[in-house]
Amino acid sequence: MTVRYIVGVDIGGTNIVVGTVREDGAAIHGVRSVPTRPEEGAPAVIERIAGLVEESISDTVREAGIARDQVSGVGIGAPGPLDRARGIVLLTPNLGWTLLPLRDLVGGAVGLPATLDNDANCAIYGEWWVGAAKGARYVVGLTIGTGIGGGIVVDGKLYHGTSDIAGEIGHTTIDSTGRRCKCGNYGCLEAYASGPAIAARAVEGIEAGADSTLPDLVGGDLSRVTAQSVYDAAHGGDEYALEVVRETAKFLGAGVANLVNIFNPDVIVLVGGVTLAGDRLFVPLRAEVKRRAFKPAVERCRIVPGALPGTAGVFGAAATFKLQTWGQA
Amino acid sequence: MTVRYIVGVDIGGTNIVVGTVREDGAAIHGVRSVPTRPEEGAPAVIERIAGLVEESISDTVREAGIARDQVSGVGIGAPGPLDRARGIVLLTPNLGWTLLPLRDLVGGAVGLPATLDNDANCAIYGEWWVGAAKGARYVVGLTIGTGIGGGIVVDGKLYHGTSDIAGEIGHTTIDSTGRRCKCGNYGCLEAYASGPAIAARAVEGIEAGADSTLPDLVGGDLSRVTAQSVYDAAHGGDEYALEVVRETAKFLGAGVANLVNIFNPDVIVLVGGVTLAGDRLFVPLRAEVKRRAFKPAVERCRIVPGALPGTAGVFGAAATFKLQTWGQA
Repeated sequence: MTVRYIVGVDIGGTNIVVGTVREDGAAIHGVRSVPTRPEEGAPAVIERIAGLVEESISDTVREAGIARDQVSGVGIGAPGPLDRARGIVLLTPNLGWTLLPLRDLVGGAVGLPATLDNDANCAIYGEWWVGAAKGARYVVGLTIGTGIGGGIVVDGKLYHGTSDIAGEIGHTTIDSTGRRCKCGNYGCLEAYASGPAIAARAVEGIEAGADSTLPDLVGGDLSRVTAQSVYDAAHGGDEYALEVVRETAKFLGAGVANLVNIFNPDVIVLVGGVTLAGDRLFVPLRAEVKRRAFKPAVERCRIVPGALPGTAGVFGAAATFKLQTWGQA
Repeated sequence: MTVRYIVGVDIGGTNIVVGTVREDGAAIHGVRSVPTRPEEGAPAVIERIAGLVEESISDTVREAGIARDQVSGVGIGAPGPLDRARGIVLLTPNLGWTLLPLRDLVGGAVGLPATLDNDANCAIYGEWWVGAAKGARYVVGLTIGTGIGGGIVVDGKLYHGTSDIAGEIGHTTIDSTGRRCKCGNYGCLEAYASGPAIAARAVEGIEAGADSTLPDLVGGDLSRVTAQSVYDAAHGGDEYALEVVRETAKFLGAGVANLVNIFNPDVIVLVGGVTLAGDRLFVPLRAEVKRRAFKPAVERCRIVPGALPGTAGVFGAAATFKLQTWGQA
């Protein structure tokens, strides 16, 4: 039988990443990325996506020596909330989209069947399909970047809930009277452990007098501190930055422990920039989860960084196309 | 076809409740209850369970005019953690049992096939089967009493996780630096909203000088304050008791909002003594969830008290027998 390929599209607030994935997930070709530039409006972004899809297919035809008609379709991962059945993005504050029929617009533009799912769902589904949680029966994952998203995989299928909103793990409360979150709630995990929250906590400490190399790293402009600069400082031996990373591990640990006690999963996978912190984060994180969650559940659960940096969302978008179209990835 | 019946057994730290349920869940007969008296040891408790099962079957034969061989088996709900596949209770601090093969001991004693599942799972499954969450696709429930347990029902089946521990919702953190919980963790939902936690918070306030009718209600002995007495005082118009109930609603609201954002369920059902507080609890609880969780998920989710006071666990234990034996309830 002819091998099929699926194009995966991962739409983020900053970049769009596209790649063409072999149906068994064993190969990816034509990985291309462009800035999203949402300020240019939805039609321009969709045109850019369509162009990128065409380029990725052309790359793949050339590299893998396949025929164009071996490409079965396009799986799209986009920020939610969205309506999978109708292929519509309901509302994405970051992109400024409201009730956008993204699936059919992209599918129409490239002349291929298309599917739509949430970007965090796609990233975690990618890790389940071919990454750090490959083949595990019960998987819960977090995507940690500008925000914190989540995805839940049970028996090889994504769990979506009654209206495709399930998995908003970044907006679970770990401190009911704590930091205000962008969502309006108080004490969300995202308010402590997203990239900007990590940076904000680091800056607060420095403004309060903490001794750190961070100000030098950003040329004295604290508004330029990012989670990445915190990790860089920590790698360089900065004790204060290390403390911020350990504190991040404690907050993440409370959130992850909740997932362990609720889902009793085989794997919890963390995807995104936070994984750059490496063992400096994961060692205290696992210790915190062990301290908080039920021992027999902790013992059965691997807590791991994602294995597909930059492409988890692309693999996963292709896998969700398979799931929606053929019933399984 | 002859109608089948299943005996449901709900084993609690205080009482054992047994009833014989028609396979369609439309009738229950021979509901009987005795004190558990775990201090007499497992053999005595099992003998008491077996006797109760026999009595319930006899009642049913008499009341419903059925033949004894229409009773297909016994579903048992017991405190966990447990191993469903082997029918073994691994450890129950309240009952003092370790590695007890409860399923086969009870089944052997009454000469019927038996199954075992977690008591909270059973209660929530009962509410899904014939109670307040009847027929809903995505259900998450809390059992609120001495502790807080949980159950998750998806597509008519209980979700157990990888080692039967899933659903420990009482031990999710809502305040990561908060009250110490019996489980060793800090800030668990159970540490704020279980029956004893509600009583403890009420007593703390009174000891700190709050004006309340509660001391009179318990004859001046504050160690006799229970969640029930707090509700009684609130029903009687005690402003301080009302405040404790509203505070309980806030804590529960944080925990329930987490479930709404994680599961995007159709129904969240609360079972147990806390439902006695009625609208005084549920009105502020729903308001708090609305304040905290994602609007489109809140709009799709009913938050309701259980509809089977005293028998949710019995109905559910019978339903889990059906699920384990015949694949569905």
